[in-house]
Order: sequence, then structure tokens, then C-alpha cells
Amino acid sequence: MADYTQPVVDVPALTALLDGTYAEVRSLTRKRLVEYAQVLDDAREMSREDYRERVLQVVKELAATGQTGMGFPVEHGGGGDIGASVAAFETMGFGDLSVLVKVGVQFGLFGGAILQLGTKKHHDAYLAPLVRADLLGCFAMTETGHGSNVQALGTVARYDLETHEFVITTPDESSRKDYIGNAARHAQAAVVFAQLEVGGASQGVHAFVVPIRDDKSRVLPGVRIEDDGRKIGLNGVDNGRIWFDEVRVPRDNLLNRYADVTETGVYQSPIDNADRRFFTMLGTLVQGRVCVGGAAINASKVALSIAVRYALERRQFGNPGGPEELLLDYGLHQRRLFLPLARTYALHFAQEVLAGQLHAVFSATEEVDERTRRALESRAAGTKALGTWHASETIQECREACGGAGYLSANRFDALRADTDVFTTFEGDNHILLQLVAKGLLTDYSSSFGELDQLGMVRFVAGLAVETVIERTAVHKLLERIKDVLPGGDDDWDQEAGLLDPAYQLAMLRWREEHMLSGVARRLKRGIDAGMDPAEVFSRCQDHVIGAARAHVERLVLEAFVDRTTAMPEGGNRTALSLLCDLFALSTIEADRGWFMEHGRLSSARAKAISREVDQLCRRVRPIARELVDGFGVPAQMQATEMLGS
Amino acid sequence: MADYTQPVVDVPALTALLDGTYAEVRSLTRKRLVEYAQVLDDAREMSREDYRERVLQVVKELAATGQTGMGFPVEHGGGGDIGASVAAFETMGFGDLSVLVKVGVQFGLFGGAILQLGTKKHHDAYLAPLVRADLLGCFAMTETGHGSNVQALGTVARYDLETHEFVITTPDESSRKDYIGNAARHAQAAVVFAQLEVGGASQGVHAFVVPIRDDKSRVLPGVRIEDDGRKIGLNGVDNGRIWFDEVRVPRDNLLNRYADVTETGVYQSPIDNADRRFFTMLGTLVQGRVCVGGAAINASKVALSIAVRYALERRQFGNPGGPEELLLDYGLHQRRLFLPLARTYALHFAQEVLAGQLHAVFSATEEVDERTRRALESRAAGTKALGTWHASETIQECREACGGAGYLSANRFDALRADTDVFTTFEGDNHILLQLVAKGLLTDYSSSFGELDQLGMVRFVAGLAVETVIERTAVHKLLERIKDVLPGGDDDWDQEAGLLDPAYQLAMLRWREEHMLSGVARRLKRGIDAGMDPAEVFSRCQDHVIGAARAHVERLVLEAFVDRTTAMPEGGNRTALSLLCDLFALSTIEADRGWFMEHGRLSSARAKAISREVDQLCRRVRPIARELVDGFGVPAQMQATEMLGS
Repeated sequence: MADYTQPVVDVPALTALLDGTYAEVRSLTRKRLVEYAQVLDDAREMSREDYRERVLQVVKELAATGQTGMGFPVEHGGGGDIGASVAAFETMGFGDLSVLVKVGVQFGLFGGAILQLGTKKHHDAYLAPLVRADLLGCFAMTETGHGSNVQALGTVARYDLETHEFVITTPDESSRKDYIGNAARHAQAAVVFAQLEVGGASQGVHAFVVPIRDDKSRVLPGVRIEDDGRKIGLNGVDNGRIWFDEVRVPRDNLLNRYADVTETGVYQSPIDNADRRFFTMLGTLVQGRVCVGGAAINASKVALSIAVRYALERRQFGNPGGPEELLLDYGLHQRRLFLPLARTYALHFAQEVLAGQLHAVFSATEEVDERTRRALESRAAGTKALGTWHASETIQECREACGGAGYLSANRFDALRADTDVFTTFEGDNHILLQLVAKGLLTDYSSSFGELDQLGMVRFVAGLAVETVIERTAVHKLLERIKDVLPGGDDDWDQEAGLLDPAYQLAMLRWREEHMLSGVARRLKRGIDAGMDPAEVFSRCQDHVIGAARAHVERLVLEAFVDRTTAMPEGGNRTALSLLCDLFALSTIEADRGWFMEHGRLSSARAKAISREVDQLCRRVRPIARELVDGFGVPAQMQATEMLGS
Repeated sequence: MADYTQPVVDVPALTALLDGTYAEVRSLTRKRLVEYAQVLDDAREMSREDYRERVLQVVKELAATGQTGMGFPVEHGGGGDIGASVAAFETMGFGDLSVLVKVGVQFGLFGGAILQLGTKKHHDAYLAPLVRADLLGCFAMTETGHGSNVQALGTVARYDLETHEFVITTPDESSRKDYIGNAARHAQAAVVFAQLEVGGASQGVHAFVVPIRDDKSRVLPGVRIEDDGRKIGLNGVDNGRIWFDEVRVPRDNLLNRYADVTETGVYQSPIDNADRRFFTMLGTLVQGRVCVGGAAINASKVALSIAVRYALERRQFGNPGGPEELLLDYGLHQRRLFLPLARTYALHFAQEVLAGQLHAVFSATEEVDERTRRALESRAAGTKALGTWHASETIQECREACGGAGYLSANRFDALRADTDVFTTFEGDNHILLQLVAKGLLTDYSSSFGELDQLGMVRFVAGLAVETVIERTAVHKLLERIKDVLPGGDDDWDQEAGLLDPAYQLAMLRWREEHMLSGVARRLKRGIDAGMDPAEVFSRCQDHVIGAARAHVERLVLEAFVDRTTAMPEGGNRTALSLLCDLFALSTIEADRGWFMEHGRLSSARAKAISREVDQLCRRVRPIARELVDGFGVPAQMQATEMLGS
């Protein structure tokens, strides 16, 4: 149990702890952000056209410093360190997010697709110029009518046996490429995802390098591009739509790491199963999700830093005669800011674990087994979903907590909120991502089922006895772990353990996850057994499926926070983080106390005790709130400028 | 209990029902919005300067048609109908919201202050030109350091006995006027709220007409104005800061309906108590809150109309081979859209009751008693808070439910979201407004305590026995009403009544309100009795205070919905609205089921049954979803333009 004498926080040590392994990269990135702080003002004051050019200029200059190429192989001008590239990207979440997303499009999506889906010939041809940002590209996957369900894309790439070319065509309006970053103005090439047709047979979705502009930025024949126009945010990024009318590219332009077409039109792949091939290809692109989640969590830090500082200066109401009270001395204001503060710390550490796993898998010198890859993808999906929703909610709450001052663009919430908003839907819609997480859990990332969509999952689960599902899945191990932490293991543990005992908190979240997952399995099975259509069964359980996934991810987040805190040396910083960890755990249970009570895992008396404890923890955070946001190390230039007329 | 054969909805009749008494005004306003639909595009594509001028032009043209002056007396060029003016304003919530807010500033705030706080000499001098929008004005109340606590404003108006003038001064930076709409460019005059000083004595906050620009738009000597710059939204409105350096205005410029200063420097008022005088002045400005809440509810209708239509066209995933499933056939998507849909209907009817009460009070030919006025203010505060939060949440959910398409500004969510965002904090911060509601309930709008701030409320409540609080307050009547609807009245009513019985639903919300209010009273009293500082007592109970107020307002909203639905003739529309009413009631209970279970008012089995019923109700809404949003009558030109490439 945590020691609750009021801690003294060592801010530089806290920043060093948060910055972790890549402290140097993060520190360097902060310096770059400060050098380019002007772009935050430009974003507000420039026309959309000028701002786009400005962002391009910044991206090119950053590329020249090596800031954006850390993840590429050294032999192609990169830094050869995936973990460093993630850390650099995350830290850029403090700054202008159009710059961040333009970097993500160019180096993460376009560059990442060529690196991961291409082979040596592609690497040799494209990587060095794209790392230098001499070759600008875009990632043309999403279509107006096809987003989350990439397997249903409409764009066609037909192999022409006579000319040894692929012919790329947009068959209908719903298959135009849409929302494609870098497409409206700057990209010279696109990685286009299209249905490969060879000899009249469809081979599913594959990726092709397709030139779309010449070196004078003129759109090439057969290609039509339209600007997506103004967006809620990220207006420094030129999103657009692309149509292809029989555009021909050489056979070599198929990114052929996982499948190829011979000159004579024979389709070949080392992966026999088409679904598995598809998901293997997609799986290599996981880094994008990891990066978006990390940047979102950092954007939350900016918002909290501003709102807490404001609440420590602004006074309102109070005892007649005396000075008014500081906003941060109001109980509700503490709840509004400290719950997201605690959750931000929790997500930070969960993200750290995830980024470490990503680095390990993608830097491994030996083949990584498929189950480990699927588990990484699942964790990336879940952390991205929770991290980006958290950013939206936290930034909004912070904006409101700053009242009218929060509404002024100069005070940063405008860009933070508008730019991060699409994070919840791009790089995978959050709900779809959580369905992916649930699918992984229910099938235990089983390779033979990992490829199935949600209806496949329904049929799979329905085909087993419920006990088998539970035994086969991750849920089983979870129950074991509950017994580990609370060896008594009887039904009264939740009534007896101390609220501030991490073992209690973890057991609660594990129990919820297990119960929700096995409940989902039962409901899916019952629906199918009753003869219902799988789509209907899924539709009715969807809320439950997503709830189970969310419960799983929250459990992982708490584990990461507890692990990190308990590994710290004794002292003020450990005490402070333990306090936040308790606040995160108990406010998470409190938020779902209805569910815990419904399922007999929380008495009403204890539920009320948890709410009181949350209030109490907020009061303990109050004296160190400033230090806890200062610890994030958000550069002053990235924060608000016009808060109190000072 | 409702009849649940699947209803056939008569859309025109539904629109007529929603439009209510002022159907003609609403219809005319829709036509005007369509005439000016171009301004929605201008908002996206024009520079801030041009857009501001464009909005001014629209406001002036609307003023010329009589659209914006319906609430002013006929003899000053107005329409003499307050209800009509509210209906017109609410309906403008479908269109460009900078136009709406510029209208609100000019006619509601500036014009409203002169009408309500001024006397004949002011009406004769200012009303006709301001109704024509020849005289443009602003409402200079908020200061950088003083927003919600208007009594603590820093600006000073000193009476100069020698010249018979008031001298207006900004004493420090935190007292500069800030976020003032119309100030940065267009206002020629300001209604300035300042601390009146007469003969060295402070008389509290009063309002003064202060010219700030000459007829060539040059800022007058002694006045300094700064632009607030870009904001999250509403960039067609020119918000700014104002400093006054010994600016002199004639004695006649005091808006003297409630207090005056004689030429010889004697302060006079028909209201002896300074607090009561202040709150009486503020109370006359209640119409602004009513209007903002109504416009916010209508903005939600726009968002829902777009998102439901999109979900009825866009397909995603589904059985292999067949067409993909419509988004709206997914259970989660139904929950995401239909819960806010039901709540929008509920708030619509609650707003209708409120607007009717406003009209009655402000059109009354006889003196309205103070308690009725306070109750109106409380209801306006609560409806504004719930309506504007609802708008923010609903628009955001709809944006996310439309994925990438929702992120494009052409599809309306950008402006809807950004423009309505400040609604939760302007015209009274929502949390402060709910505190006002709670104060009214705890003191039963007692005139002798209505003026107290939150700490006064703490002391007042603490001074009574808890039983007395309960007896004295509105809570008491509430308990009586629970017994009325469920005469059995024993503790098992919640386990026995049908979930779809409105009497059950109302009893649940009434019981929650009563329990929370008496709980707050007990906690406030206990804190003071224990010798705690009132500020600390309040801080600790603040969450509870606001929760009680919210429970109160939700109860009023449900009552309004039930009353309206049960008064309808039998038929498809009544069945459809009953269905939405059930969905609103049960989803409201579901959302707070943790609380109900904690307090022994809901068993876990019944809580689960409510969740199942909510799912079931969503499935019943599904076939009539299109009709239910079409019933809102949002003009097609106000909806999305680039959703599916069509």
C-alpha cells in the first residue's frame, strides 16, 4: 500500500522517468519543436494554401536533420532504430499536429508501406529519396465507400499479360480514394491498395506504387485528383480524392514482399491462405497505430498543463471580503482535471510498454511467431483506441475548464482539439479496433482464426462449448492471475481488501474482463444456437464485445502503471505516482460501478467508499498538481499565450 | 403503457407538432435560412475579416425584414411578441451560428439590456435604431478575471458631482472587458457593467450606455480595443477586449430602471437590498439563456439528421458474398445515434415548456411575483446547461459516427461543433448554472435567500434542521408527487412496475432528485456543524450539489416529454414519440444505474433488464429513424453536401 505522507515531487527526475529509454531523442525533439514554434501561430493566421506550404517546408527541413527518418534502415539514410522513431513522433504530439500528421503520412504510411510491403528493388529505388523528403508520397488505401473494411476496397489492379503492366482503375464513385493525406497538392507517388486481378481471377487486396504527379507537380494522365477542402483540423495537410482511369504501371511496382505475379501472369505467394496473407500485410503497418496513440496521449499532456496552470491563477467566488478562491480549490474542478491527469499518466506507461514491444518485434533478428505479432497488433489497436478517445475527452474538458479563455485559438485548445479529433477514426476507427481486440481475445490470437472478420468470429465461438472458449482464450490465464494476487481467492476478497491495495484494484479489473469476455462468448453462442443470423447476433452483442475489449485494455493500462510505480525507488516521486495510480484505478472502477454492482462484485457501501476515496485522492493531488503537469515537460512555447492578460 | 405495434410516422404532422404555437415564425425563419445558405460556405472559405463583414451584412438584412426584432415593443419597431422572438432565434440554430450569435449579441444582449434595464428615455433614444441595426452595440459584462462572479467585476463607474457625469475606468488588466462580441469591429456603443461609486461609496454593479466608436467607426478617446483574434468557432463574430481610461458619459447613460443617481449625487433604488437589486437586474436578462439552450438543441437536430442519413446509406462489413450491412443496422451504431435522438426530442419539449413560461412572465400585464421569476430563471439555467452539453456531445458523437466524411468541413460537423462549443460556457458557465439551480431548490427560491451566493447557501442550509430544509424546499412537493403517481407507495414499487410505465420512470427520477437534494442538505449541514470552513464544505459537496441539480432538470425534461406525449391523439406519431420517451427515460436511468443501485432503488437484475429494454427500444426505433429526423424539418441546404460522393 502506498505511503501517503504528502510527497515532494522532483520535477526533473519525473520528466526523466517519463522520457525513459529515449530521453535524448525526446529532448532533441522538444528543441526542434521550440525552433519551429512559429508554425503554431502560422496555423491560425495563414490561409489554408500558405499553411500547407509552410508545413511542407517544416517537414522537409526536419527530414534534413534526421528527425523523421530514425526508423528507416541505416543503408537507406535512416537511423535504424524503431523505438527512437516512435519516441520522436510521440514527442511531436506537443507541437503543431499538421506537421506531425504530414510526417506520419510521408514517413510512416507511405515510407512504411514501401519498407514493409516492398522488397529490395523498392527499397533501393524509393527509400533514400523518401527519407530525404525529395520523393513525396501518399498512402491511398481508404475509399469513400470503404474504410474500415479494407478487404472490400473497390479499386482494381488488373495484370495485362501483353504489356506486363498493372492497370489501375476506379470502377465507381464509392471506390474513389478519399481523405488521402498529401494527395491534394504534394505527393508525386501513391501506394495504392487495390484488388489484384490476374487472368480474370481476383487475388484480393495488394499494394502498388503508382506515380501521380510529374516533377513539375502536374497530375499525370489518367489520374484525377480533387481537394477534400477544409477539414475540422489538420488543415496544414492536403487531403484529397484520387480517381484512376486505366493507369498503367510496370509489373515491378507491385510491392511484392508477400505476393508476386510472374511475367507470364502466374500469381505466387509464400502464404497460401488469402485472408492470412491480407492480414499479414496489414499487420506490418502496426507502427502507425502505435504512433498515433502516443501522440494523442502527449496532446492530452499539453491540454492538462495549460488547464492546471490556469486553475492555479484564476480565482472565482469565495468568502466575502477575502480574495476569491482559486479554481483548483473547488472539488469539482479537481475531479475534472485530476481524473484525466491520472489517466494520462496511466496511458503514458501503457504506451511505453507497447512501444517497447513494437521495437522488440520489429527489430528482432529472428522470426517472430505469428501469435506474438497478433498480440502486438491487438495491444496497439486497444491502446490507440483508448489513447485517442482520452485525448478528445481530456482536451475538451480542459477547454471548458478554462471558460472563455479556452475558446481563444491563441490558448491552444482550438488546434489541439480540432487536430486530434480525427485520431479516433483514422488509422482504424476506434470501435472497429476494439472489435479486433475482442476477436483476438476470444480466439486467443489463434493463427487459423485471426484472419476472420467479426462474423467469422461469431461462427467460431458458436462452434465451441463455452467452457472450451474460456479455456482456449486469454481469459483463462486471467483467472489464474487473479488467484495469484489474492491467494485467498474466495468471493469476499472484494469486500475485504483495502481500496488502495493494487492487488485489489487489479483483481477488480481482471475479474471484469474475464466476466465480460465469457459473457460475450455465451451470448454469441446462444444466438447462433437459437438459429439467429450471425450478423444479427453480432449486432446485438456489439456493445458487449466492445465493452469486453475496453475492459481488457484498461486492465493492461493499470498493470503497466502498477508495474512501473512499484519498480520505482522509494521517495516523493514514487509516492506521487502511487497516488495517481490509485486515482486512476479507483476512478476507473467508480466510472463502471454500475456494472460491478450489477454483477455482485461491489456492494453499495463499498461503491460509495470508492467515490469518497476518489475525492480524497483528488485533495491529495491538489498540492502537487503543478509539479505533476510540469513533469510532462511540455515546452512553454507549446502552451497558452493569452490566458490572464499577462 | 405504450402501444408497440410498429408505428407509421406522419412526417409533416410530426414537424407541425414540434413547431408548435409558432409554426409560422419557424417556417418563415427556415425560408430565410435557405435564402442565406451561401453563408455556410462563406464561413469555410472566406478570410476572417471578410466573413465578419459578411455576417454583419446578413444580420442587417435580416433586421430589415423584421426577423430579428420580434421581441421588441411595437412602438419601437419591434414585433411585440417574446415567444415569437425565441422561436425565431431557436430556428436560426439550424443555420450559420455566427449569424445567430451576432443576432444574439445585438438584439438579445445589447438590445435586451437597454429594454430591460433602461427606462423610457433610453427606449426612445436607442431601441428603434438598434432594432433596425443602424445602431450596433455590444454587451460589456465579462472581464478577463471576472466571468461567472459578476458581482466581483473590477470596472469602475464613478459619479462626478461637478460635471454630472459617470467616469468609467478599467483599474487593472484582470478587469479589462474580454470576449465581448461585436466589440472588435462593429459596435458603436457598449452596455458596460461596472461598480458604481457615488460620493466614495460603492453601490455595486450597474449598467451604463457608453459610446465606443464614432460614426466613422473610429474608436473614441479613452477607449482602447483589442481583437480577441481567432477562436475555436464563431469567427464571423468580432470578439474583443475593451479598456476604459476615464471615459465620461452623461448621467442619463445609467440604465436606471432599478436604481438611479440624482444630479446632486444621491443614490436611489426601489429595491433596498443590494444583492436583491443585483439579482433582479440580472434576472431580466434570462431570455438570452433560454435562446442559447433552444438554439443548441436545434443544432443537435442538424447533426442527427446528417448522421442518421449517412448511416442509412453507408455499408460496412457483412456476410461474405452479400452486400455489406448498413451502419444503422449495427446495435452499437443504434445506441450511439438513437439515445441522443431520444434526448433531443425530450429536450425539445422541455424547451417548449420553458419558452412558454418565459413568454408568460415577460408578457404579463400584471406584476409577476418574485418566486415565479426565480423559478423561471432556475429552469432557464438548467435547460441551458443540459441543452448545450447535449449539443456538444451529440454533435461530437455524430461526427465520429460519420468517420472521415464527418471530418470534412463541407459536411457541417466542423462548424456545428466549433460554433456551439462555447455555448457550454457563455451566457453562464454550465456548472455555475447548475449550482444556481441547486441553490434555488435548497432555498425554495425564497426571496430573502435567492440572492445569496454558494457560500451563503451553505450557511443558510446549515442553519436549519435537515427536516426543515426538506420541508421548506421543493423536495417536499416532489415526494408528494411520487405518492400520487404510484399510490401503493411502498418500497417495492421499483421492482413491480413495468419498465415502460411512465409513472415508474417518473417516480425513479423524482426519487433520485429528492434523495440527492436531501443528501446535499445533510452534507452541507454536517460540514458546518463539524466546524469546517464554508468554502471547504462547498468544495467537498460541489459534485453532489451539481448532481442534484442535474437530477432535478432531467426530471423536468422527462415530465415535459411524458406530458406532451400523453396529450397527443392516438396514432403512429404518438406511438413513435412514446417509444422515444421510453428510450429517453430508460437510457437516463441506465446511465445512472450505479447511483440507483448504490441507493437500493434498483436491483441488479432490474438494471440488466433496463439495458436489454434500451437495446430493444433501439431496434424498434430503427425502422422509423429516417422519419424521426426528417420530422425536425432541418432544411436540406443546412445538411451535409459531400457524404458519399453523390
